[in-house]
Amino acid sequence: MSSPTPAPNAPLTYDQAGVDYDLIDPLKIAAQRAAAATGAHLGGHGFAEVPGSRGESAYVVDVGPLYLASIVECLGTKTLVADEMARLTGRSYYGAIAQDTIAMAVNDLITVGATPLVVQAYWAAGGSDWFNDAQRSQALVEGWKAACDVCRVSWGGGETPALAGIVADGRVDLAASCTGIVSPKSRLSLGDRLDVGDAIVFLAASGIHANGLSLARKLAERMPQGYLTDIGNGQTYGEALLAPTALYSPVTEALAAEGIVPHYSANVTGHGWRKLMRHTKALTYRIAAVPPKTAVLDFIQRECRLDDREAYGTLNMGAGFALYVAASDAGRTVEIARAQGVEAWVAGRVEAGPKRVVIEPLNVEFAGDELQLR
Amino acid sequence: MSSPTPAPNAPLTYDQAGVDYDLIDPLKIAAQRAAAATGAHLGGHGFAEVPGSRGESAYVVDVGPLYLASIVECLGTKTLVADEMARLTGRSYYGAIAQDTIAMAVNDLITVGATPLVVQAYWAAGGSDWFNDAQRSQALVEGWKAACDVCRVSWGGGETPALAGIVADGRVDLAASCTGIVSPKSRLSLGDRLDVGDAIVFLAASGIHANGLSLARKLAERMPQGYLTDIGNGQTYGEALLAPTALYSPVTEALAAEGIVPHYSANVTGHGWRKLMRHTKALTYRIAAVPPKTAVLDFIQRECRLDDREAYGTLNMGAGFALYVAASDAGRTVEIARAQGVEAWVAGRVEAGPKRVVIEPLNVEFAGDELQLR
Repeated sequence: MSSPTPAPNAPLTYDQAGVDYDLIDPLKIAAQRAAAATGAHLGGHGFAEVPGSRGESAYVVDVGPLYLASIVECLGTKTLVADEMARLTGRSYYGAIAQDTIAMAVNDLITVGATPLVVQAYWAAGGSDWFNDAQRSQALVEGWKAACDVCRVSWGGGETPALAGIVADGRVDLAASCTGIVSPKSRLSLGDRLDVGDAIVFLAASGIHANGLSLARKLAERMPQGYLTDIGNGQTYGEALLAPTALYSPVTEALAAEGIVPHYSANVTGHGWRKLMRHTKALTYRIAAVPPKTAVLDFIQRECRLDDREAYGTLNMGAGFALYVAASDAGRTVEIARAQGVEAWVAGRVEAGPKRVVIEPLNVEFAGDELQLR
Repeated sequence: MSSPTPAPNAPLTYDQAGVDYDLIDPLKIAAQRAAAATGAHLGGHGFAEVPGSRGESAYVVDVGPLYLASIVECLGTKTLVADEMARLTGRSYYGAIAQDTIAMAVNDLITVGATPLVVQAYWAAGGSDWFNDAQRSQALVEGWKAACDVCRVSWGGGETPALAGIVADGRVDLAASCTGIVSPKSRLSLGDRLDVGDAIVFLAASGIHANGLSLARKLAERMPQGYLTDIGNGQTYGEALLAPTALYSPVTEALAAEGIVPHYSANVTGHGWRKLMRHTKALTYRIAAVPPKTAVLDFIQRECRLDDREAYGTLNMGAGFALYVAASDAGRTVEIARAQGVEAWVAGRVEAGPKRVVIEPLNVEFAGDELQLR
């Protein structure tokens, strides 16, 4: 999809940034239907899928003594920012990029209550010579390992294909698959217990993470200094964008160790805070306290002239992950997250009412039909 | 890597086809070392990696009552053949391509004795509009489901990112992750029991599968009729290349049901029959009976003027998968495979001697140092 270049001072929205979900969705729906029809095969092996996991962020299978959870996740286009910043600064940002890629997989897998155990690397380059940049390769390997260390997962292996003619010359398509288990089975968290009165706890984002990068790149194109623009805190726009995505599995593992099983979890990625109503239940999610945006998101909102509705409906705006816990566990959840070095806040609560997200301090509301994931 | 175009009648070898393993290998080695250092994290969760699975075709973790096996695999460049054939014929070959992609993952996962349970789809397109070709999208979805049905795996979900600027316009990067279990644990097959006297049983390939496509594409470029060249049996070269890769998990599951646990298995992919000495043990693999090549491989060998050494060291040459079983199980292994509709042959045996593959009828030998995978 080519998209028209907006006038320099016009607002810049996500639709203009070149991802057309209308074209992807019919395929997605057909794929979801076909996929759902295959779940019954597990019965032939003496196992069964956990039906409530279809459409959730990770797929779960009951193999008897434990649940198996698995996922594959793509980084997206954040490497294009890293490549441009490497050209401008001579530095490699692939250490951060590696963490982003693992975060995309791990932060989704943990939403169902799984302990991530194994990550597989998928690094598809535009040609064999991509791997010849020793500084970049080393950064990628070291960053990948460091993220595995933080999440205490084993890096099982992976693929490093050279795909000239498919992946663009000089580029790399990065993804990660992650496999984990839910054990004991009581840790399974698919929203069955999500209910009126639950507290919504936000875990702090470290920056833009790996969603909204198409928009962020468009903004760079229309600023005279591009990625080298100072965002107001001494950091360049490119550096700020490339802050690696926070890894949340140390928090969810610490919660489990302390006996707290979230009633539900949502990884706040594409669709921003609309993701807060990810579950199918008809409930109202009322946010009473809005966390700090992080400098780079504040900058993007201002420079793209996004209103709060557009910004909070697209970007994480400082909230990288949402935990829905019993109100009596909310304070302890915040403490446990902070003890893992992740800032956290009790941000709101679940109420009876139509499916919607209400951000009270900003006077913004997203109706249930504004999030179409299934 | 650009590579010089060979003269029209010169032999065409894999090195000329543009994949330079020397450039990939230093990264691979660094990645393997870093990955190996992360295995200890599993201890923190009360589990352990199965060390013998590092460097094998799937990674295995001991989670107590069972082993967990996982993998991610890339299709490679076979989509470029499908795209060109679609342009020439107006048909979509993405149903076959879907099966190829799943075969890459499933046929690797089963080598360790695992039952594949869940496949995740990774379809990264060059832009949102890639998904707008309804015929192609439908073929991809239906072919993916059909392959899951054959392997009795559940299609858990996946990713369909639009990666303009990373994946080339009009192209798609296809991969699959697969998770399975080894249960009962006695099915684990990492070569510990591989020994002198074992029989080598080949399972028939259905064509070129998904390895050697760079070479196959180069050949198309230098034939006047290209992919529409008749290969001598009424089939065009393009159609013959696009025969979907055989799926071998029905055979390995049937073997398990009959109480046969292979001592080792090798998925014959890149490096052709050199893969027969995939295990680290110092053993001689002597092939006494060479199976039919399949028409397309015979054509490629002839037209590229590959000698047997080059052909059998690069392509599957009719043997898609090798099972190493107790000699007393060899005949029954062949029968069980045939009952699943997969042709099979007792092809040779494991002998004492230096690590090498000896193809007696062809007078070809590969020395141990001609396969560098770890």
